[in-house]
Amino acid sequence: MRTEVEQGCKNMPMLPNPSAKYRAFPQVPLPDRQWPSQVITAPPRWLSTDLRDGNQSIIDPMDQAKKNRFFDLLVDIGVKEIEVGFPAAGQTEFDFISGLVKSGKVPEDVVIQVLTQSRADLIQRSFESLDGAHSAIVHLYNAVSPAWREIVFRMSREDVKNIAISGAQMLVDEAAKRPDTKWHFEYSPETFSTAELDFSLEVCEAVMKIVGPTKDWPIILNLPATVEAATPNIYADQIEFFCRNLPNREAAAISLHTHNDRGTGVAAAELGIMAGADRVEGCLFGNGERTGNCCLVTVALNMYTQGIDPGLDFSDIDRVIETVEYCNELPVHQRHPYGGDLVFTAFSGSHQDAIKKGFEAQEQRNDELWRVPYLPIDPADLGRDYEAVIRVNSQSGKGGFAWVLQQSQGLKLPKRLQADFSKHVQFMADDKGRELDADDIWQCFRHTYYLHVDQRRFRLIDYEESRASDGTRIFTGTVEVNGEEQRVSGRGNGLISSVAATMRETFGLDFEVTDYSEHALGSGVDARAAAYIEWAKPDGTTGWGVGLDVDVATAGIRALLSAANSVSHGPGTPHF
Amino acid sequence: MRTEVEQGCKNMPMLPNPSAKYRAFPQVPLPDRQWPSQVITAPPRWLSTDLRDGNQSIIDPMDQAKKNRFFDLLVDIGVKEIEVGFPAAGQTEFDFISGLVKSGKVPEDVVIQVLTQSRADLIQRSFESLDGAHSAIVHLYNAVSPAWREIVFRMSREDVKNIAISGAQMLVDEAAKRPDTKWHFEYSPETFSTAELDFSLEVCEAVMKIVGPTKDWPIILNLPATVEAATPNIYADQIEFFCRNLPNREAAAISLHTHNDRGTGVAAAELGIMAGADRVEGCLFGNGERTGNCCLVTVALNMYTQGIDPGLDFSDIDRVIETVEYCNELPVHQRHPYGGDLVFTAFSGSHQDAIKKGFEAQEQRNDELWRVPYLPIDPADLGRDYEAVIRVNSQSGKGGFAWVLQQSQGLKLPKRLQADFSKHVQFMADDKGRELDADDIWQCFRHTYYLHVDQRRFRLIDYEESRASDGTRIFTGTVEVNGEEQRVSGRGNGLISSVAATMRETFGLDFEVTDYSEHALGSGVDARAAAYIEWAKPDGTTGWGVGLDVDVATAGIRALLSAANSVSHGPGTPHF
Repeated sequence: MRTEVEQGCKNMPMLPNPSAKYRAFPQVPLPDRQWPSQVITAPPRWLSTDLRDGNQSIIDPMDQAKKNRFFDLLVDIGVKEIEVGFPAAGQTEFDFISGLVKSGKVPEDVVIQVLTQSRADLIQRSFESLDGAHSAIVHLYNAVSPAWREIVFRMSREDVKNIAISGAQMLVDEAAKRPDTKWHFEYSPETFSTAELDFSLEVCEAVMKIVGPTKDWPIILNLPATVEAATPNIYADQIEFFCRNLPNREAAAISLHTHNDRGTGVAAAELGIMAGADRVEGCLFGNGERTGNCCLVTVALNMYTQGIDPGLDFSDIDRVIETVEYCNELPVHQRHPYGGDLVFTAFSGSHQDAIKKGFEAQEQRNDELWRVPYLPIDPADLGRDYEAVIRVNSQSGKGGFAWVLQQSQGLKLPKRLQADFSKHVQFMADDKGRELDADDIWQCFRHTYYLHVDQRRFRLIDYEESRASDGTRIFTGTVEVNGEEQRVSGRGNGLISSVAATMRETFGLDFEVTDYSEHALGSGVDARAAAYIEWAKPDGTTGWGVGLDVDVATAGIRALLSAANSVSHGPGTPHF
Repeated sequence: MRTEVEQGCKNMPMLPNPSAKYRAFPQVPLPDRQWPSQVITAPPRWLSTDLRDGNQSIIDPMDQAKKNRFFDLLVDIGVKEIEVGFPAAGQTEFDFISGLVKSGKVPEDVVIQVLTQSRADLIQRSFESLDGAHSAIVHLYNAVSPAWREIVFRMSREDVKNIAISGAQMLVDEAAKRPDTKWHFEYSPETFSTAELDFSLEVCEAVMKIVGPTKDWPIILNLPATVEAATPNIYADQIEFFCRNLPNREAAAISLHTHNDRGTGVAAAELGIMAGADRVEGCLFGNGERTGNCCLVTVALNMYTQGIDPGLDFSDIDRVIETVEYCNELPVHQRHPYGGDLVFTAFSGSHQDAIKKGFEAQEQRNDELWRVPYLPIDPADLGRDYEAVIRVNSQSGKGGFAWVLQQSQGLKLPKRLQADFSKHVQFMADDKGRELDADDIWQCFRHTYYLHVDQRRFRLIDYEESRASDGTRIFTGTVEVNGEEQRVSGRGNGLISSVAATMRETFGLDFEVTDYSEHALGSGVDARAAAYIEWAKPDGTTGWGVGLDVDVATAGIRALLSAANSVSHGPGTPHF
């Protein structure tokens, strides 16, 4: 087969040859890397850049109302460090930030962060916007990679380092003038992941010399993958290399800021934490320029499923989604981990069957350990119910509709009844050519088993039950037959056999009851009962009857009349 | 700050404590792992499961027309191994597969693959569906992990292994009966990533013993992360462990099948390739149950950006997206790597500026090496143009609208004209509160610089130019002034200065021309010219005039009249 594959590649239309245009990303010299043996055991500090990206990366930037709504959401879910914007970018930004500070809406345990480039006027304006804040992080950045130095700035390494140094000095000076706020500083060597590691270290060291951080008052060094340019292990190597070679490491909180250009932003953040980072920047559901930032929801809930409390609350994930979609005017994709509409859903029969067994085993074990096939997290932990877990279309098996009937109607169908009903559901799904909802399945069930009034040939109006002197039971009842009431009677060893005898003798139906079961629907005074009867004719034909009633005995009789209908006419025909 | 953060975590509402319900995924005993030092240098074999997932994972399963359309797309982009379905699942599936085989649509260099569980009737049916195929892969699977063994099957390890062995024997037997087809076999220990590695190895070895693969006729051993349950490095460890411990390794093609429950399906596939895998299964744009499968587009184009030809053709990515969205009835998200609508778009001024400089540097270097800030791949390689790269809203700087005017109108505005126009665009963006499209910006430009007929106070009707005996130039023209034509004349050292003199003397406008530039719009006989004139009044006020005409000289005169309009009235007012 290798030959076929190779030959095939030669014949096909080709992209422009990439080898002329693109280069492989270089390895990091770190043969003794430690991160692949590390395990994440505690959550990082989280920083949301949703409000910044709500300006710079979406089609219609958030207005003040949306920014406030998003800020409230972030506080509610427990984010303690929130980048609120770029105050020097314009009056609107400045007013929002200044207004937020003065509103008193920022809780004592939440620190807001603002972003600035390294220019005296911008830095001063940034500090002004924070006037009155109890605490704040001023986030200074400049790009350090060769491409940016050469193409965008036309500057030497020394020039670029001096921009960082002078900015850091201005941070220190401005903070000193405003002693009422507890100041923290963050420095980002932007484009870190595509820069020379020794140069990033050199610039960060220079910034630390100016700021003078300590273990108790660390500087945040944020190391962005401004554009994701390599497999995520390379980013982890870069982080570990940086952490191991940074002097005075304990006076710095190492922060990650990954992007998703290669679809591995979450992985890069996770491997980066293993490589020694203390903090993760990102957005809810991965908003951000181009392919977006690292998704904080995913990273946090990934930890959660490993038994680690992430310190962020997504127990009502639908509310989070609603706000995020409203503010960003971008959807959360149906397959987005944890949040998407379809991520807890199984359509295929074998998956549905396994999930159903998983729930049953879960209930029996009762050990509170989550262990359900195909579901990496309990949807209930995110405020989702189990109704969407199993959805029925033409690919679904018996497990699927049985689950739906149990969830929506409380019916627990016997296995052989499931098999009997299965072909009717399959036919309906093929016929409709679309997903079946709970109501479709219920209507199909009602018609198939003559629970639907209009289709019943035999219908119970009333009955009495008495005991004969020989101990047999006598059934006497009024049954509607094709719209006309008729008094009927028969006897048997029990209720069901007496009604079966009645139907056999009165209407000449030749069948036996081969199985019978019954269960309660719900509990308490409103409880109803469901009864299931399997019948067989002498020619080997079999089928089912179903009866529902508030009374257990009546449910059984109804099931038998339902059986009589299908003995007489075959299963009912659902109207599609 | 640590203290604040810790304190904050204590106060906030909490998810149910996960430590009671979830456990950390165990490490793989592989301290001497080699994969973190490996680099991907060649593409894997690709297997698309789009058609299988088109049945089992979407709301409305694909009909035959959609399946055929998707199959054609896969062939077109160069996929050589295509899983077409599960023939024993039902008549519709069987008919599609059998029809496809008999249609002759499967190229000689493409191998189709079908999936089956390990049951004699299903396996026989699978072979029957392939009757007449030149070659085919029959893909046998059974789940091997403890959760599935205990919860779903209630079987011992031995029982589960025997299922695989008996299935493999049936594959061999059925194939022997049908010598006209070149058969290949694939075995998947489903739920591999959550199973004991020694057991997966044991089962795969047992299957290999039955099948008897060789280096030239290898078996495919596909190792699924059926549910993604750990960070992607763990999956890579599992793959490397498996590859290193599998006897007769060269007789097996190791295949990856990752899912995206933790958002790291692409990363797991990439690290898995580094760990020794030969083949990757997945779907275009990551369709598949729940969060989906590994996205083949992303993995392939990730390689492409490293100078490796992936052997898959996405040079018309929009056509691929159109078909995928049509068949799956699910959208490709706006931020999906490589394919999303927004992934090559910059809204923010500083990003736009860097991209613009990148394109300019690219043109100057002319070395064909792609090196543009913020763009990891040349959109043109995917059949996308550059128009969507820069989009303008209230967060955009001068680079943004200048790019748009250049792309849509061919105008290359001088830097100071960009600054002059910038405030008008900013005002328009704030006023409209939405993204500005190319037409918005063009209308704003036309009104601001009096290119719009109705707003012009001074408008050129006709002119002559002659040379005086002293060598100065004499301008004589007809100018419309507030709707009335007027003959005017003046003289100067050149054309522009003669028109400036005319306007100063005739209408009492006190201004100097401080800058002038002109460039061609387009090329050939249809070329037009754009002229830009900066003016200054004695009070220091400055502004710009713009002229467009088929004739370079006339464009200059129009620019001067445009300047005269703004000297007289200030810049024009765009009507929003």
